[in-house]
Amino acid sequence: MVTGGAGFIGSHLIDRLVAEGDTVLVFDNLSSGQTSFIEHHLNSGAAEHIQGDLRNFEDVLSAMGQGVDRVIHLAANPDIRLGTRVTDTDLQQGTVSTYNVLEAMRRHDVKKIAFASSSVVYGEDAPLPTPENHGPCLPISLYGASKQAGEGLISSWVGTFGFQAWIFRFANIIGARGTHGVIFDFIHKLKKDSTRLEVLGNGLQEKSYMEVGDCVDAIVHVMKTTDDSLNLYNLGSHDTASVRRIAEIVVEVTGCNDARIEYTGGDRGWAGDVPRARLAIDKMLESGFDVSMNSEDAIRHTAEVLLKEIGLEE
Amino acid sequence: MVTGGAGFIGSHLIDRLVAEGDTVLVFDNLSSGQTSFIEHHLNSGAAEHIQGDLRNFEDVLSAMGQGVDRVIHLAANPDIRLGTRVTDTDLQQGTVSTYNVLEAMRRHDVKKIAFASSSVVYGEDAPLPTPENHGPCLPISLYGASKQAGEGLISSWVGTFGFQAWIFRFANIIGARGTHGVIFDFIHKLKKDSTRLEVLGNGLQEKSYMEVGDCVDAIVHVMKTTDDSLNLYNLGSHDTASVRRIAEIVVEVTGCNDARIEYTGGDRGWAGDVPRARLAIDKMLESGFDVSMNSEDAIRHTAEVLLKEIGLEE
Repeated sequence: MVTGGAGFIGSHLIDRLVAEGDTVLVFDNLSSGQTSFIEHHLNSGAAEHIQGDLRNFEDVLSAMGQGVDRVIHLAANPDIRLGTRVTDTDLQQGTVSTYNVLEAMRRHDVKKIAFASSSVVYGEDAPLPTPENHGPCLPISLYGASKQAGEGLISSWVGTFGFQAWIFRFANIIGARGTHGVIFDFIHKLKKDSTRLEVLGNGLQEKSYMEVGDCVDAIVHVMKTTDDSLNLYNLGSHDTASVRRIAEIVVEVTGCNDARIEYTGGDRGWAGDVPRARLAIDKMLESGFDVSMNSEDAIRHTAEVLLKEIGLEE
Repeated sequence: MVTGGAGFIGSHLIDRLVAEGDTVLVFDNLSSGQTSFIEHHLNSGAAEHIQGDLRNFEDVLSAMGQGVDRVIHLAANPDIRLGTRVTDTDLQQGTVSTYNVLEAMRRHDVKKIAFASSSVVYGEDAPLPTPENHGPCLPISLYGASKQAGEGLISSWVGTFGFQAWIFRFANIIGARGTHGVIFDFIHKLKKDSTRLEVLGNGLQEKSYMEVGDCVDAIVHVMKTTDDSLNLYNLGSHDTASVRRIAEIVVEVTGCNDARIEYTGGDRGWAGDVPRARLAIDKMLESGFDVSMNSEDAIRHTAEVLLKEIGLEE
């Protein structure tokens, strides 16, 4: 089972899993996912889609009974900023949903879970690049709090009920079929008004970007090659890029060369935004996996494919 | 406001706060707390008790409107083992309740919170003694997962909404008015049958114990002397004691000298029990606070006072 399997990362993961010969049960409420992303696998019979909501325990319990042998739990609130306005968004779509997944697994004796956590669990005072053993983890966004809560729940199901788990702390994952994020936002802004591009913050936020193909390859690789009861891995690329640089690349790729780039100011994009993030990826590299793109390549590639998907014409 | 203020640690804390001249709003559902613990303060008008449930947001929101300037959030599921059988116990009484406290505070512009976390957030693979900056925190009990989730929520309210917070990771807190825990259990077992004392596990579990008076003194001291936006402190004593030694002390204090001590075996008391725990307390000591009792003194003292409270006669 892949939760959020019709979403951005999920649909790429399903491409890989199907290529490996797996049959995938996609659990997705289509709040941001789209069945069109996985249509070919639904048609071929390699994937089945259950439209359920993780917040509804009965939905999850019933789906989990359909011969699931392991779960890759990606579903989450995709809009980090929404958490600031509607403060139980991440509690419900993150923490409680993860509990529901784990409890449904326990009831059906499904004991292997992989979880999409995030670099944001480290908060903003962590050394850069940040290794997996950094502590204390003090997230500053409600999304980060829900990812940390999810990690703790999974860890306790490992310790109490004999589960086996893989926890992946993602850098910023970008690529085709993106449904949110800075590049997606920039293209939509230029589509609306090609003469200006508003950038939240001063543009100096500096983070690590990983192309989604690399991300799902890393997940599959690490799950194949590690076998501890709990396996924790940062997934990211080797370097970082600034939001300013992303804005320049998007302007260039879209051909909106007259667009003025305007900064709203301040050192973060919104309350709860971590201005600088870079993951130490030594552990990932030691597992034998390396990325095919660094941050700037991934950004350019993503701008190109999202431009085709979104288009600039209304 | 003190949540769980009619409980074991809460009632001792209220003794201290009232001695400092504070007026305290006690929020407690009396699931394990007792108004008799705080009766003198209720009668004197120094404390007021609201019988509400933290799981009910409206209860918390309404209480928070009554002139609260800071919150000390102690309430939690007191029965760690219950979490294993009814797996949403800690999610509801821990994580969701902490969310409700924070959100009610935000709505009423109350921005200072102290939180009773626990050494169990560190899990079982941490170095001993464990410093605050240990990572990753991988709790093995559902109770530990809820404490970690509570820490993350608080940290995110600090980062997103400008809250100020004190997070205390407690060792095993013991003392008068105890309503659970190993010494409490042992005395109740001997009350039932004074000829034998069943000990869960092999008795070699080795943990650090802190007397409740020291614990609440430490809380008050650290809150007075620290002023970062987020202040994280381990609270514990300098040493550890084994469960075997606790059993011997309880047998001696109760005078049940003929009681056979019987071990159920295994290196932990129950699924999710961390067999060995000891907190690094350097940070607490550097704040200028030291404990008045070490583990064995605290255990003997607690056995004596709980024996008086519980009695051995049916």
